[in-house]
Amino acid sequence: MNKEAIKEKLKNQKIETPSWGYGDSGTRFKVFHQAGAARNVYEKIDDAAQVHKYTGVTPSVALHIPWDMVDDWKELKEYAGDKGLKIGAINPNLFQEEEYKLGSLTHPDADIRKKALDHMYECIEIMKQTGSKFLSLWLADGTNYPGQGDFRARKHRLEETLKEVYQELEDDMKILIEYKFFEPAFYSTDIGDWGMATFLAKKLGDKAKTLVDLGHHPLGTNIEQIVAFLIDEDKLGGFHFNNKKYADDDLTVGSINPYELFLIYNELVAGGADTDPDVAYMIDQSHNIKPKIEAMIQSVINIQEAYAKALLVDREALKEAQLKGDVVLAEETLLSAYRTDVRPLLESVREEMGLDPDPLKAYRDSGYAEKIAQERD
Amino acid sequence: MNKEAIKEKLKNQKIETPSWGYGDSGTRFKVFHQAGAARNVYEKIDDAAQVHKYTGVTPSVALHIPWDMVDDWKELKEYAGDKGLKIGAINPNLFQEEEYKLGSLTHPDADIRKKALDHMYECIEIMKQTGSKFLSLWLADGTNYPGQGDFRARKHRLEETLKEVYQELEDDMKILIEYKFFEPAFYSTDIGDWGMATFLAKKLGDKAKTLVDLGHHPLGTNIEQIVAFLIDEDKLGGFHFNNKKYADDDLTVGSINPYELFLIYNELVAGGADTDPDVAYMIDQSHNIKPKIEAMIQSVINIQEAYAKALLVDREALKEAQLKGDVVLAEETLLSAYRTDVRPLLESVREEMGLDPDPLKAYRDSGYAEKIAQERD
Amino acid sequence: MNKEAIKEKLKNQKIETPSWGYGDSGTRFKVFHQAGAARNVYEKIDDAAQVHKYTGVTPSVALHIPWDMVDDWKELKEYAGDKGLKIGAINPNLFQEEEYKLGSLTHPDADIRKKALDHMYECIEIMKQTGSKFLSLWLADGTNYPGQGDFRARKHRLEETLKEVYQELEDDMKILIEYKFFEPAFYSTDIGDWGMATFLAKKLGDKAKTLVDLGHHPLGTNIEQIVAFLIDEDKLGGFHFNNKKYADDDLTVGSINPYELFLIYNELVAGGADTDPDVAYMIDQSHNIKPKIEAMIQSVINIQEAYAKALLVDREALKEAQLKGDVVLAEETLLSAYRTDVRPLLESVREEMGLDPDPLKAYRDSGYAEKIAQERD
Amino acid sequence: MNKEAIKEKLKNQKIETPSWGYGDSGTRFKVFHQAGAARNVYEKIDDAAQVHKYTGVTPSVALHIPWDMVDDWKELKEYAGDKGLKIGAINPNLFQEEEYKLGSLTHPDADIRKKALDHMYECIEIMKQTGSKFLSLWLADGTNYPGQGDFRARKHRLEETLKEVYQELEDDMKILIEYKFFEPAFYSTDIGDWGMATFLAKKLGDKAKTLVDLGHHPLGTNIEQIVAFLIDEDKLGGFHFNNKKYADDDLTVGSINPYELFLIYNELVAGGADTDPDVAYMIDQSHNIKPKIEAMIQSVINIQEAYAKALLVDREALKEAQLKGDVVLAEETLLSAYRTDVRPLLESVREEMGLDPDPLKAYRDSGYAEKIAQERD
Repeated sequence: MNKEAIKEKLKNQKIETPSWGYGDSGTRFKVFHQAGAARNVYEKIDDAAQVHKYTGVTPSVALHIPWDMVDDWKELKEYAGDKGLKIGAINPNLFQEEEYKLGSLTHPDADIRKKALDHMYECIEIMKQTGSKFLSLWLADGTNYPGQGDFRARKHRLEETLKEVYQELEDDMKILIEYKFFEPAFYSTDIGDWGMATFLAKKLGDKAKTLVDLGHHPLGTNIEQIVAFLIDEDKLGGFHFNNKKYADDDLTVGSINPYELFLIYNELVAGGADTDPDVAYMIDQSHNIKPKIEAMIQSVINIQEAYAKALLVDREALKEAQLKGDVVLAEETLLSAYRTDVRPLLESVREEMGLDPDPLKAYRDSGYAEKIAQERD
Repeated sequence: MNKEAIKEKLKNQKIETPSWGYGDSGTRFKVFHQAGAARNVYEKIDDAAQVHKYTGVTPSVALHIPWDMVDDWKELKEYAGDKGLKIGAINPNLFQEEEYKLGSLTHPDADIRKKALDHMYECIEIMKQTGSKFLSLWLADGTNYPGQGDFRARKHRLEETLKEVYQELEDDMKILIEYKFFEPAFYSTDIGDWGMATFLAKKLGDKAKTLVDLGHHPLGTNIEQIVAFLIDEDKLGGFHFNNKKYADDDLTVGSINPYELFLIYNELVAGGADTDPDVAYMIDQSHNIKPKIEAMIQSVINIQEAYAKALLVDREALKEAQLKGDVVLAEETLLSAYRTDVRPLLESVREEMGLDPDPLKAYRDSGYAEKIAQERD
Repeated sequence: MNKEAIKEKLKNQKIETPSWGYGDSGTRFKVFHQAGAARNVYEKIDDAAQVHKYTGVTPSVALHIPWDMVDDWKELKEYAGDKGLKIGAINPNLFQEEEYKLGSLTHPDADIRKKALDHMYECIEIMKQTGSKFLSLWLADGTNYPGQGDFRARKHRLEETLKEVYQELEDDMKILIEYKFFEPAFYSTDIGDWGMATFLAKKLGDKAKTLVDLGHHPLGTNIEQIVAFLIDEDKLGGFHFNNKKYADDDLTVGSINPYELFLIYNELVAGGADTDPDVAYMIDQSHNIKPKIEAMIQSVINIQEAYAKALLVDREALKEAQLKGDVVLAEETLLSAYRTDVRPLLESVREEMGLDPDPLKAYRDSGYAEKIAQERD
Repeated sequence: MNKEAIKEKLKNQKIETPSWGYGDSGTRFKVFHQAGAARNVYEKIDDAAQVHKYTGVTPSVALHIPWDMVDDWKELKEYAGDKGLKIGAINPNLFQEEEYKLGSLTHPDADIRKKALDHMYECIEIMKQTGSKFLSLWLADGTNYPGQGDFRARKHRLEETLKEVYQELEDDMKILIEYKFFEPAFYSTDIGDWGMATFLAKKLGDKAKTLVDLGHHPLGTNIEQIVAFLIDEDKLGGFHFNNKKYADDDLTVGSINPYELFLIYNELVAGGADTDPDVAYMIDQSHNIKPKIEAMIQSVINIQEAYAKALLVDREALKEAQLKGDVVLAEETLLSAYRTDVRPLLESVREEMGLDPDPLKAYRDSGYAEKIAQERD
């Protein structure tokens, strides 16, 4: 790919940031308060707009219901629009009501399933009003002890309730089904891996896809292979970007193993998913000790670097080395791109987009952090 | 279930032992030779017959091709028959030819794929002659380094070659597709988890099922949930029983976490797979330091105990507790069965089958080990 | 060991329950409220007394400061005494102050280290008033990102501050140093494994020991070997009992791998630690969905079963088999004890202690749960 | 550090390659033969000399006894000298004799321990003749099943036998004690982690140090923290470099997570271990499918890159950010060095050393591979 084509792709990259990434968050032991942390959806949108202002590639923000509930969605959409943002994926919450202690969509009690379903319908309603195209479902349902639940009965309930949800989706909407190895359930999780999610998505139909959260796999899992598999099955719905060292640590994407992030982007580019508007590229992190907005900008930069390097891979040479069985040369072909310092390339992209070449520094220098620290506390 | 029904089920339990479990094996560092280790398929059948003689529940033996290759399969079948054994699953070997260094069924080179396919056809021919119903495929194909292979191209080749194999299967034959997290490939494995295996099995058709090897999962994986999922999808083809503490350790089944083995059997009983003749219950272990036949008898006993305890579970009470959301009671219902000492029950089953109540001691006392140690060395 | 000696040991077993196990707890996603959950330290002591009333082996309760802070410790000690309980280990809290976001005892800022030290001294003061012998330190300090901290500088600060704490301990007091693989720090933990904890304990002196929390290891870790190692080095300080399937899941002890719990007790009995009054046997679990008191009784029973089985091991036979290199016989010697149904033995122990043979049922029938649900909500 | 100082350090870097890395190797399933693989120690030295010829930083070769056994060590030393190489660490083999099935230095049988000890003495004798300074001990001893061994008895035997070995070391010799999480033992390993190794080293004395093999940890382990800890305790003896994705995969160092390799070097530079002649930097990989010499050159380059980047870290800025608690800035300080493309720097270093700037290509172009393929087969 020539340099101009690469720059064009980098300019068109789109990453969605999450509203909940701008508010206080923590571990089960402590939520540390940050000066200036956003206190409501409007402030979250303000902060997301800052990230977009300095990076130029985060034009939408994902919402979490009911955390981001408002009375007037039209007004919120306009508020975001004024800031240069669209409302992105809608994320239902099926884990914070007392009734959901033993499950929501998979709960043995039909009334509780009904309550969960109603919340899903409510989210679809919100999508219609906000123009959102993605219903992004993370289902925390699972069990903590052997015997607690009947695996097959829970599976049946899940298939049934999601079928109901699916029928409410409009033609251009998608449901993204997220999976997770464990937590908050510590014995079994009803959608425990990409296989369970994707079997479900297959049963539902074309509007159902699988969502890959980088922190939701057993240690060692080859995520890039799963991504390639999903692309090949036309079931890749999108990403929740973050990084892990141990479990679902929700650290800054690329902060523990940046090479893995590059290898994932290598598959996305190879499979054409990088330019597929039906794949949602979303960040989902929990910055407990880093300043929220800075951490988000850092994340965006890390993703940009991984994408830029993946675009630099000489795919002809790679394919040739693979077919010849030249393992060293094939690997070196990837490494040649990975070793490249893409900071100058990205700086030039940013300058052509009318942005500061160093978004992190520009944001730091802007005084915004100090301003919100004062205004919001 | 009343006691007589339980005993009846225990008498009808069938576990297949593997021919390769009777010969020398080891790690990459050393294969320790055991006095009396079987040196050919006839001696392996002799040893398998010993396990059946003392346990009464291992009436078949799985073969590995070409390790167990003979000129006259009819004669081998008769030899086994004379010892009271049937020939069980046929296991192709697609990992020990020099050509397979970079893959067999997924290799970029069509000639090598052809060689692998021919071996698969050869195995189906053997099945016809031995009356085997299961073609048990463990595919070692994978890559060691990023860039080495094209994930999607390898997937396509696998789907194509297995489609060819599938067409050669007779109506009452099944292909069991095994998956494995890693080893001998250390970056990616072409059939890396149950999801990849089962997507493949779905594409092939009803004669293709998934094979669960207990040692082939990431640490922490809830295997019993996967088993329940596969039963529900009618894709459970069978097991390779063993146990792991770290990776694919191939230890005696039940030796590291016997409760997990019980929980797996709990799902098998709950889902009716325990009495399904289409599910193959096979042992696949590598006893590097234990005497082979003793270790096999020990394994069979551990499986019998897990099954006996699973049969003792009060399923009405369990279901009731689950529906009420009584987590402690549901768990205690399982534990009540698990805590039971089922040795007396199994002893009485054995006596009613005309066997010694203590198979391990009976074998040890028989002098067989000393005899083969002398004869075979 | 003869049966009477075994029973005697079972009667003398002592397990400490934690005050925080009786209040509401949860995950980072949600703390589910339980009807009747204890709201203050007095209610926690009331509930701990219930566990002791039905099991007879939990005569002390661990406190967490400042969660259990009172003005008058003498009065609290008497309150507990009236309920038949002693105050056990004192647990400082160095993770819930805003200042501790980047560390407490290891913080770069001397003022914050001073604050943490003062809290430690305060806890020692409380120990003097409550007659507690164990200062049980879980240090959450660590880092989330590469570069965030200087490993060696943090190690130095930790050694220095703990030396100060150590000097304040009275002669019959002990500091128990807990280690943890990860969480809430997701890149590095300052006391990350038993090695780091025990090097520290060695440097401090005889009053410093290592505390083993069963959930604080990487998956696959052979905990019983670590326990044997610590016994041999005279550095085993005690336990935080719980069970994990994935990470620090804080599930009911024995609920995921009861055989592992037995193997740990097997080492305790073999090494004589089971009767060593200087080893603290404490429960530390987080029962998010099980009723607290029931779950605690269940935990105590599971520990009793593991201990009872460990006492049944024929140690002469085991040693003989080990020396002969008879791997199968050595393993079967352990299994023979493990397979025993020890419920009748424990029932008879309880009856001789004047207790109901079935503590869980007796507690359930007592109406206490209903009573506190009404009184406390 | 100024550029010249950095270049000086890079020129003085020394990495030892292992003789066994030039011969055929494999997994437990298959050893694939490579055309031209070295068949004896002389050919291994020839190949090691090639790596040094093109990289300039691998002036020594580690030997494995008895694999590399010769009658005349003086002659071998001269042979190596003529090729520009020194004999490096001597690696005893305590895992390939039939007697070692249940242990070597920890075996219950005193005769077998004696045999193992004699082998260790033999290796020390060889060290005297070859001028080697490091006795590099990887002890495979462990158990496969619960009950098989007595942990404390095995520990005692290990301490006793190593004490004997230690006494035979000359003043300028070191014993490097390697640890490993698992394999070939699958239940317990006698030196299972850095803690066990380092406690042993402490007991032995100053000539005993801990050897860190990058593949010998549980997944997720923060290796750089362990390295920093060992530096601080003056117990870092050296490295066996390789990389893992799952277990002890023995892949090319840096091939799975190059950032981790950089973080390890960051600690080495920060702690001054990079220039400490008492720390042994050794490669230990098993290239089953890559051409041996190419893979070794690739490994050396990856290590050079990690070191170069670590030297580029602005340590003043890092320290300042750490003390200020500026997590983002501290991380970015590391990333700034890591993102740098150090290929030009290394090319210039090589040119100043009189080497080809591209060692891999230069070797490929040299025709050596074709030559040995012809000569050795």
